[in-house]
Amino acid sequence: MFETVELGRKLSKEDYESGLSELRTGLLKAQVQLDAAGVSVVVLLDGPDGAGVTETANQLYEWLDARYLTSEAFAGTSDEERERPEFWRYFARLPRAGRISIFLRGWYARALEHAWSRRSTPAEFAYDLRRLAALEQTLTEGDTLIVKLWLHVSKRQQKQRLRALERSRETRFRVDERSWKQHADYRRFRSLAEQAVRETSTGSSPWTLIEAEDERYRNVTAAQKLLQELTRKLAEPRPERKPVPEAQIENPDTILDTLDFKARVDRAVYEKELPEYQARLSRLARKLARRKQSLILLFEGPDAAGKGGAIRRVIRALDARQYRIIPISAPNEEERAHHYLWRFWLQVPRHGRITISDRSWYGRVLVERVEGFATREEWMRAYAEINDFERELADGGVVLVKFWLHVSAEEQLKRFEEREREPWKQHKITAEDYRNRRRSNQYEAAASEMIARNSTEYAPFNMIAADDKRHARLEVLRTICEHLDAAL
Amino acid sequence: MFETVELGRKLSKEDYESGLSELRTGLLKAQVQLDAAGVSVVVLLDGPDGAGVTETANQLYEWLDARYLTSEAFAGTSDEERERPEFWRYFARLPRAGRISIFLRGWYARALEHAWSRRSTPAEFAYDLRRLAALEQTLTEGDTLIVKLWLHVSKRQQKQRLRALERSRETRFRVDERSWKQHADYRRFRSLAEQAVRETSTGSSPWTLIEAEDERYRNVTAAQKLLQELTRKLAEPRPERKPVPEAQIENPDTILDTLDFKARVDRAVYEKELPEYQARLSRLARKLARRKQSLILLFEGPDAAGKGGAIRRVIRALDARQYRIIPISAPNEEERAHHYLWRFWLQVPRHGRITISDRSWYGRVLVERVEGFATREEWMRAYAEINDFERELADGGVVLVKFWLHVSAEEQLKRFEEREREPWKQHKITAEDYRNRRRSNQYEAAASEMIARNSTEYAPFNMIAADDKRHARLEVLRTICEHLDAAL
Repeated sequence: MFETVELGRKLSKEDYESGLSELRTGLLKAQVQLDAAGVSVVVLLDGPDGAGVTETANQLYEWLDARYLTSEAFAGTSDEERERPEFWRYFARLPRAGRISIFLRGWYARALEHAWSRRSTPAEFAYDLRRLAALEQTLTEGDTLIVKLWLHVSKRQQKQRLRALERSRETRFRVDERSWKQHADYRRFRSLAEQAVRETSTGSSPWTLIEAEDERYRNVTAAQKLLQELTRKLAEPRPERKPVPEAQIENPDTILDTLDFKARVDRAVYEKELPEYQARLSRLARKLARRKQSLILLFEGPDAAGKGGAIRRVIRALDARQYRIIPISAPNEEERAHHYLWRFWLQVPRHGRITISDRSWYGRVLVERVEGFATREEWMRAYAEINDFERELADGGVVLVKFWLHVSAEEQLKRFEEREREPWKQHKITAEDYRNRRRSNQYEAAASEMIARNSTEYAPFNMIAADDKRHARLEVLRTICEHLDAAL
Repeated sequence: MFETVELGRKLSKEDYESGLSELRTGLLKAQVQLDAAGVSVVVLLDGPDGAGVTETANQLYEWLDARYLTSEAFAGTSDEERERPEFWRYFARLPRAGRISIFLRGWYARALEHAWSRRSTPAEFAYDLRRLAALEQTLTEGDTLIVKLWLHVSKRQQKQRLRALERSRETRFRVDERSWKQHADYRRFRSLAEQAVRETSTGSSPWTLIEAEDERYRNVTAAQKLLQELTRKLAEPRPERKPVPEAQIENPDTILDTLDFKARVDRAVYEKELPEYQARLSRLARKLARRKQSLILLFEGPDAAGKGGAIRRVIRALDARQYRIIPISAPNEEERAHHYLWRFWLQVPRHGRITISDRSWYGRVLVERVEGFATREEWMRAYAEINDFERELADGGVVLVKFWLHVSAEEQLKRFEEREREPWKQHKITAEDYRNRRRSNQYEAAASEMIARNSTEYAPFNMIAADDKRHARLEVLRTICEHLDAAL
């Protein structure tokens, strides 16, 4: 497929200079409009060594308004990055709305490198490409424009370019042993690259092949393609975002009704078993650290289900240096300017660490669905996006234990009233809690659908009847221990 | 000094339990108020091994609302942290307004450890303590409450505690060789700790010594002290923030008038020298990477002074993988919820990297002063805060090159009009630019004061007459090369 761009196209100095002003004006204008449109842009700039990835990026930097542009290179990962699932590093560097980021040898470099050096099998490479395509779909559906440019040079041209780079003192450092190894094995590298380009060219984020021998032609074509994509994206009718709250549901029959709310645990049993589970969890947490895995505990459930109380029993078994509790509330301004999963990706713990998430990314299909903060289209596709996200966590060595703590309507009311009487619990109860309570049928239906769609073999939802606090807390501890036992 | 808390104080189980409800209620209420008051809190919890730093933190986690609380440990730094000046790691983890963060063995651990293991001399230790005191002053003046708790155990108690920890399978891992080494050399550790506590107990962030032998007494006293400090801080009258714009100044005589605006560079000279400087810079940038130092280029100056054009000439010499351009505009919501230096600390480059700052932290004493976004008190103390900040950068191996690009009033007007004519420059000009121009006397006076107060031997301001763009660009490149030559 790459032979289709081996045409020897060149751009004369005159043609180059005559078109430049219009091209730059167009790019700068588009950049200003981007900001107003709230679109973020990732330019994936890739190609073999010597094709001019760095040079093209430098040129774009000059032509665009550098104040709203960043470039990111992923070679030489830090330990912060290596100790988290692969996609963490990409999410951490996504541009916010209105900005453009050039990803030099973006997220394809690792998969290509692994396949080329035979660290991954052909099947694994194919799976890597599927994962990357899914990542791109998640991002483009979340209003990120992804412009993928593959700079192509033939084997002969690559040799010439590498030699030319080596001749100059200024550029010699760019050519290393690896470059020549890639050149020696050019045919296989090319075939893997062709596979990557072919299998990840989708309707919403296709690859563009650019003949890279002539510098002027290469740079101008890359910039023109970027401008064209920006213009197209900006001209798209902005999808009408008309989120509506869920319609009233009368007495939904849900899986939550199957929970045994009568389950009780005696104080004597509780006081014997609680410290036993805590001791077990404490040992497992240290094993987790030794094994260089990490843990996310995720708590969802209606107000007053006892999430906070359960969390306090969990942390009693842990070392404060190892865990972090993350309360999730409405996203702030910076978070709203990114994909909704961005803030959750950023909080993924590194090796040996534990994060305890009090509410979570499931807000998308719970509160945002029920209250109408997200459109139906948005929360509908979130089920799959979340499954992909959790799959990446699991593949990256993160143990994820998810809880849905549930209380019956009567018990919840009792607890609300209790909170109002107890002075040190009053801060926990607001008018909103009572309002949410009136919508509890919708919340239950949404929770039930979420549990159905997001209980996967790699990250099942643990439903726990929480009318009896002692029962719920023991169940939470027992479940965490079992998951850890299985995973470690 | 520590003997003053060797009193054998204990808390009986009854006393402990009877007071607990009130203490917890108080803490939770204070936490709610914190949020409204926009105050952030750092609890520094420190003490020798075996004094119960971790246990106390765990207990506070249980008593407080864990959703608005984090804990941070600084042992085991990541390479991201090691490759930046020391304070980066502290700033990166400061809580936002309304939150509390417990820093386990916070920012004193490193200085104490270095002094104790003789990696630092007594003079260096004294300097470290001064730096920490200055850091604390910067934070407390920026509305962060710092509560410093030192948990004290005598040598005999330390031995007992370490032995007890070793006896239990659950806690054995907390005691290592280092703990026993510290114990063997207890007297010297204690004397260094006493020095640290004495020399950094200031009016705004004093240390509190807590006798740590009895667990109940220790935990309750730590919590009470925290509550007391929260209550005190919340009861303080909120300082009336009445920022006022600078009064009109007629024709200020400033150092900027001494610049030679007539300086011109011929096109021929420019086209010869520019690539020479760029080649030199390119070599120096690679040397920077090899030497594991980092570089910040900072550009300030009036609108249309040519900052963007100069930056484009600089990056032409650099590899897009090495640099990042950071445009500074008004702080966002999250940034406003932190100390104003927070966002700048976060952007400090790691080893081998370069950040190019288009406007900077000097906004505090320029636009925020002139337009009245900061109070007089705030921008006045910023001169010293910024000098401290830049000193930390210099000590941490960051080369900082600061530019003030200046244009004469006539040239500025000419450029504004030019921008309005050129279609691809129109996006750069707004009504605000003309408004700022009318305030140019105030801006000049502010710039002049800034240059006087913030030109230090470790980070001088380079003033450049920019009426002639070629002259300015060559000067910028020459200055960067000279600074790098001197530093590498």
